[in-house]
Amino acid sequence: MAEASRTSEARRDAVFGRWVVFSPARSRRPTDLKSHNPTNNPSPAPKPSCPFCAGRESECAPQIFRVPPEDALPWRIRVIENLYPALRRDVEPPEGSGGEADAEEVPGELALSGFGFHDVVIETPSHEVRLWDLEGEGVRDVLLAYAARARQLGEHPAVKYVQVFKNHGASAGASMAHSHSQMLGTPFVPPSVKSRFNCMKEVFDKSGNCSLCEISSKDILISETPNFSAIVPFAASYPFEIWIIPRQHLSYFHEIDQDKALDLGSLLKLMLQKLSKQLNDPPFNFMIHSTPFGLSSSCLPYAHWFVQIVPQLSVIGGFELGSGCYINPVFPEDAAKILRELDCS
Amino acid sequence: MAEASRTSEARRDAVFGRWVVFSPARSRRPTDLKSHNPTNNPSPAPKPSCPFCAGRESECAPQIFRVPPEDALPWRIRVIENLYPALRRDVEPPEGSGGEADAEEVPGELALSGFGFHDVVIETPSHEVRLWDLEGEGVRDVLLAYAARARQLGEHPAVKYVQVFKNHGASAGASMAHSHSQMLGTPFVPPSVKSRFNCMKEVFDKSGNCSLCEISSKDILISETPNFSAIVPFAASYPFEIWIIPRQHLSYFHEIDQDKALDLGSLLKLMLQKLSKQLNDPPFNFMIHSTPFGLSSSCLPYAHWFVQIVPQLSVIGGFELGSGCYINPVFPEDAAKILRELDCS
Ligand SMILES: Nc1ncnc2c1ncn2[C@@H]1O[C@H](COP(=O)(O)OP(=O)(O)O[C@H]2O[C@H](CO)[C@@H](O)[C@H](O)[C@H]2O)[C@@H](O)[C@H]1O
Ligand SMILES: Nc1ncnc2c1ncn2[C@@H]1O[C@H](COP(=O)(O)OP(=O)(O)O[C@H]2O[C@H](CO)[C@@H](O)[C@H](O)[C@H]2O)[C@@H](O)[C@H]1O
Repeated sequence: MAEASRTSEARRDAVFGRWVVFSPARSRRPTDLKSHNPTNNPSPAPKPSCPFCAGRESECAPQIFRVPPEDALPWRIRVIENLYPALRRDVEPPEGSGGEADAEEVPGELALSGFGFHDVVIETPSHEVRLWDLEGEGVRDVLLAYAARARQLGEHPAVKYVQVFKNHGASAGASMAHSHSQMLGTPFVPPSVKSRFNCMKEVFDKSGNCSLCEISSKDILISETPNFSAIVPFAASYPFEIWIIPRQHLSYFHEIDQDKALDLGSLLKLMLQKLSKQLNDPPFNFMIHSTPFGLSSSCLPYAHWFVQIVPQLSVIGGFELGSGCYINPVFPEDAAKILRELDCS
Repeated sequence: MAEASRTSEARRDAVFGRWVVFSPARSRRPTDLKSHNPTNNPSPAPKPSCPFCAGRESECAPQIFRVPPEDALPWRIRVIENLYPALRRDVEPPEGSGGEADAEEVPGELALSGFGFHDVVIETPSHEVRLWDLEGEGVRDVLLAYAARARQLGEHPAVKYVQVFKNHGASAGASMAHSHSQMLGTPFVPPSVKSRFNCMKEVFDKSGNCSLCEISSKDILISETPNFSAIVPFAASYPFEIWIIPRQHLSYFHEIDQDKALDLGSLLKLMLQKLSKQLNDPPFNFMIHSTPFGLSSSCLPYAHWFVQIVPQLSVIGGFELGSGCYINPVFPEDAAKILRELDCS
């Protein structure tokens, strides 16, 4: 569909149940949209004081594990504790945790101890290397490190959910320039995870289908591999938002195997390259949306993990904060077409 | 409680049902927290080209009404159409709208025409005047203008909700420096409004009480007037977030009368002065959280409107985007104490 023919439209997605207003009048042509805060320019100088660089391991909080494990070889990935943890592994876990019941409890004001895990994944020993500069195998190994750490966290009875995320660039929240991501193991099921499951359950109860398995439109497809599809979601909250979805119905990211991790690694690399090229190296976040631990098996038919990538091109205002509804100037079909046709070889 | 004694804590609020992680380790002392992007410095020069200034009315989209109404007197407030509306009053409203049913519909992918209303409220004819520079009566009149316009919008059968909001400062999303706010009349109940009502209903079903009527702690109180309380909410998502809540159980902001509007205007002015003084004129948003039109009367016992003020002191990262859970370095009791004791006379 030609961009010119588009008028405003409101769409609700079938995963988060969120309304998004598509308003081409609010922006220039989609191809003109570029980051005003590119993260490459000037290219980040290797800071002599960066604690994530090779050789400065002693300035970091304790290491949890490294890749490869043998100390004799140089490390390629390190999973370490966060020096300023939001949640702390050294306090008492909340009482009565471990059961499934508290996740379903009636809301009300509630306070829990600040128990939890907050880790950092250093994706490369080199300060200048960005995640998408690694080979597919390198990105695979980062994904496998997330998965291995998530499995460890899942063994703690008080950990209900693991949120894996990456901040790249200051406007996406990154305080460290050296390529890294973070993982938080929380003693509660976070609000967006809860509302995602509520929404996907409603769709499932009505249609008998998983919202993510149902996606089939070619208009929003960017790229496909044997195991994954990369799309711009039908009701994307942000311009050029991308979801990478396992084509098979799979509930837990942390169960990913080597082959699928390589497939995902290559596709994630390609999507980050495309965003960088199309949008002038924008700040971005990505988040892995998985399934809470110990969810009852009756929920698994609508539990489907995926990766969400969000380039940060504009500031959120009071409308979004107040209503939870986003205004997106770029239609998903237009963003998908641009990204699909962009050559990164 | 002394700041030093605090360790991390996770809290869930009884209004949005959101989890927030309080993590004093993530920041300096609360009193050190200041805006890095103050909006006053350099003070905004009266732009000769600002269409919101007195004398440039012809450069604006059409006026809806003005205060005072008589054209003979200079205007103090203008309510106008947004020149780049996210939702458009000139397209066909969604089919079947008007009933209450669609708000309750089962989620799934859904698209509506981009029908709706998007207005701008110019709060003053002068480019340099900020909302809190007006007298209490001036802020009252702005509030009464919101309410009058909300009543008009509520008469359209397809408008389900009106979101009133203000963006102040570039990092809070403002693209215009001249003091203004915005109103969107939406053809759907926005996601956060829906989840707020779901949460408040659960609390009500369990306790028989409205979540907002129940708030009584003196520790989080900043200031009180005959009709309103200003607090830092128990599970504030943002450092120094403020809620102004009617002390009586009232569901609809747009029913506010002159006396209450003056009371609220004075308190809102005081809170904005306090934030400006304490946090170095930070960018901020405020949002009026009201009740969807035509809600069944059985819901009114837990429908209570309020104003949320959010100073924008830091960037949101992937954890918040992914989980919907916020990390706040400042405990509400500490923020409330600082704001309560701050003298703005
Ligand atoms: N020597 C060291 N050893 C171990 N760890 C070290 C370290 N030096 C620094 N760190 C940690 O490394 C992390 C780097 O993380 P990011 O740059 O992705 O963003 P940060 O967590 O600061 O905040 C962003 O992400 C969070 C979560 O989304 C938001 O709350 C916030 O507003 C946003 O700016 C920090 O959490 C920091 O505590
Ligand atoms: N001559 C004229 N006549 C009439 N109206 C005029 C006009 N000139 C400009 N306008 C309108 O005035 C409004 C000013 O609004 P703000 O400065 O509060 O933020 P804006 O809506 O641009 O975006 C912020 O708020 C929205 C909603 O929260 C976010 O989507 C966005 O990312 C964020 O930057 C704009 O909406 C603009 O369209």
